[in-house]
Amino acid sequence: MEKSPLAPASFPDLPSIAGVTLRVARARYKTWDRCDLTYVEFDEGTTVAGVTTRSKCPSPEVEWCRDALPLGRARALVVNAGNSNAFTGNRGRAAVEAIAARVAGHVGCKPSDIFISSTGVIGVPLPIDKAEEGLSAAFAAHPCGWEEAAATIMTTDTFPKAATAKAVIGDRTVNLVGIIKGSGMIAPDMATMLGYIFTDAAVDAGFLQQMLSSANRSSFSCITVDSDTSTSDTVLAFATGQAGNAPLTSFEDAGADAFNAALSDICRQLAHLVVRDGEGASKFIEIGVNGAQSNESAHKIALSIANSPLVKTAIAGEDANWGRIVMAVGKAGEPAERDKLSIRFGGVQVARDGLAVEGYDEAPVAAHLKGQEIGIEVDLGLGEGRATVWTCDFTHGYISINADYRS
Amino acid sequence: MEKSPLAPASFPDLPSIAGVTLRVARARYKTWDRCDLTYVEFDEGTTVAGVTTRSKCPSPEVEWCRDALPLGRARALVVNAGNSNAFTGNRGRAAVEAIAARVAGHVGCKPSDIFISSTGVIGVPLPIDKAEEGLSAAFAAHPCGWEEAAATIMTTDTFPKAATAKAVIGDRTVNLVGIIKGSGMIAPDMATMLGYIFTDAAVDAGFLQQMLSSANRSSFSCITVDSDTSTSDTVLAFATGQAGNAPLTSFEDAGADAFNAALSDICRQLAHLVVRDGEGASKFIEIGVNGAQSNESAHKIALSIANSPLVKTAIAGEDANWGRIVMAVGKAGEPAERDKLSIRFGGVQVARDGLAVEGYDEAPVAAHLKGQEIGIEVDLGLGEGRATVWTCDFTHGYISINADYRS
Repeated sequence: MEKSPLAPASFPDLPSIAGVTLRVARARYKTWDRCDLTYVEFDEGTTVAGVTTRSKCPSPEVEWCRDALPLGRARALVVNAGNSNAFTGNRGRAAVEAIAARVAGHVGCKPSDIFISSTGVIGVPLPIDKAEEGLSAAFAAHPCGWEEAAATIMTTDTFPKAATAKAVIGDRTVNLVGIIKGSGMIAPDMATMLGYIFTDAAVDAGFLQQMLSSANRSSFSCITVDSDTSTSDTVLAFATGQAGNAPLTSFEDAGADAFNAALSDICRQLAHLVVRDGEGASKFIEIGVNGAQSNESAHKIALSIANSPLVKTAIAGEDANWGRIVMAVGKAGEPAERDKLSIRFGGVQVARDGLAVEGYDEAPVAAHLKGQEIGIEVDLGLGEGRATVWTCDFTHGYISINADYRS
Repeated sequence: MEKSPLAPASFPDLPSIAGVTLRVARARYKTWDRCDLTYVEFDEGTTVAGVTTRSKCPSPEVEWCRDALPLGRARALVVNAGNSNAFTGNRGRAAVEAIAARVAGHVGCKPSDIFISSTGVIGVPLPIDKAEEGLSAAFAAHPCGWEEAAATIMTTDTFPKAATAKAVIGDRTVNLVGIIKGSGMIAPDMATMLGYIFTDAAVDAGFLQQMLSSANRSSFSCITVDSDTSTSDTVLAFATGQAGNAPLTSFEDAGADAFNAALSDICRQLAHLVVRDGEGASKFIEIGVNGAQSNESAHKIALSIANSPLVKTAIAGEDANWGRIVMAVGKAGEPAERDKLSIRFGGVQVARDGLAVEGYDEAPVAAHLKGQEIGIEVDLGLGEGRATVWTCDFTHGYISINADYRS
């Protein structure tokens, strides 16, 4: 698979995070010659928070993480690429339990301190023997760097994805590093969004969860590639506490706002990277909705636009087709008045008060649409509600990846 | 545009409907050499019922029809192809009023007896002068047959669509004929679903509305091509009463059940024809959901499957990818339990109780998927709720039609 045209020029420079040790190995979940098992060990005292898919049919890994998250402690993370283990009943659950037991024995901790994700083909139980072999190899391997780990969690992704941020807490500067994979919002047998954020900050697990849930609402919940939601989507944040700051427990603490801002920033960076590797994507699209009756209403309307096949194909065709935007606003089911609606492409108003702007300057709009970064703004003229979401265009590449492929 | 591979072998034989006179003319809404204005005149005494788009940004034609429908009377129908007149503010409204006034003057009736639809490019006010010229030509034209009328309401459709049904009411046999256009569930500048049903039965307008609304829920509301909802979708039913039956006013009347069944039948036939002309379609897909907690829940789950780009591309690829079905069930947000779910393709069970059926016979499934008529059945194992929806697959053709095109 060719690298997405929207990929960053290079993998970023990332700091190491004290208390986090990365290793990768070959479990050979598929007949490929690449590392496909990522093993991350955390020093004692690491706290954890997470958000998972809202699918009613989650994978056993998701169920495992949901059960372990309230305890707030983590000693290791295992990510399997090539097999999602979803929809595999008791055998899938047994594989997760076997991995947790094996790693807990190695580390010397409880199974509930182990976090596990899997991504890849659905409906095939994760082979326990391959997982065991992969883990043995990982335990024996030399520690590796972020780029290797980010590459090992990939499935159909076309480039490894990572981001970093920092914050000052009291007299300490703490670092955050995140890695993520995902190429469709979901393609259960090919992709799934898995994201991991690591920080050396000391953060209480409950407070970390509060901040991560909030950051999620303005980052991962605001991206869509194809409107399809994974059985396995998972984002976990691990805080080792080794930066030595006074532990953050609430927004009352000095530095909490700064850390929260850094966490939001890294979540948004990671979310954008997933869109930039959207299946078949040739354009990165930011959709802003203002003037809605509420923020929730604005979010629904923005996603209705972002998920519309007709809007996404119009952008692929570099066509300032604002009629399709109107259609997508109208179908969202949220309060909207045709005669108050205005629409901008790349900052240029093309429709206002329910009418085309006669004689608007088409040249800058056409030039904007030929670029890779597309901005669409809709003003509903009803209230103060606003939202921003990000998506990619819908091209022959998406059809080729998903239809010309056989499971 | 090549004719859809899913088109029927030929246009059906259709009876004439007493009290209905069809004419077509060239209004030249676009630079094309074809008839694009359809004018249907009804004898006095014709009742009417209708359902329109739920879009919050409807066209002025839709607003006009909504205002006129409660009166229950119709003397004429005008359908403009090539310009949807949607999102055109007061000028669009003025065009609708001018058409209604002109036709009412010609027929000798009130403007509210005139029904109007338009389909085509969005955001350009319907040119009143072209509409007037087209109407003058239509008034002077010889009456035409169903096939010409069905072809004249087309935009990007690849074949004219019509269906018929009949019912016995007392000692009279009544006929129903319907014509419809639509190729995307919507593409506001290229398509829109417009359907018209004509019958010589005598039916009270309120009762006709009750039956049409009910038929709509199991026909037009159960199809999707691309999940996008038109600003202009409209289905109207006209009853001239010239069959001479005792007028139907409620289900208590003899023959009402038979007529209701015929109306449901013709609505479903017409709905299927739209799917068969879905943009880029190569397969007709029926999705049945059983065992849901309610019929509404089953309907939402069925539409979640039908609208999933990943399910639709898998079918295009002739891939029995039941994992994508699980994903679509999971994302619907409706009650579902992974371990009770079973899935069939073409009648063959491929997943049961949340697990792949080991060693299921792949040959008949593969053969089924190579065909043009695809059946997917999902049983949730939770209750008695059931629903059926119809859609088409998602191919390079859809992308070509919608992205490679410029407005």
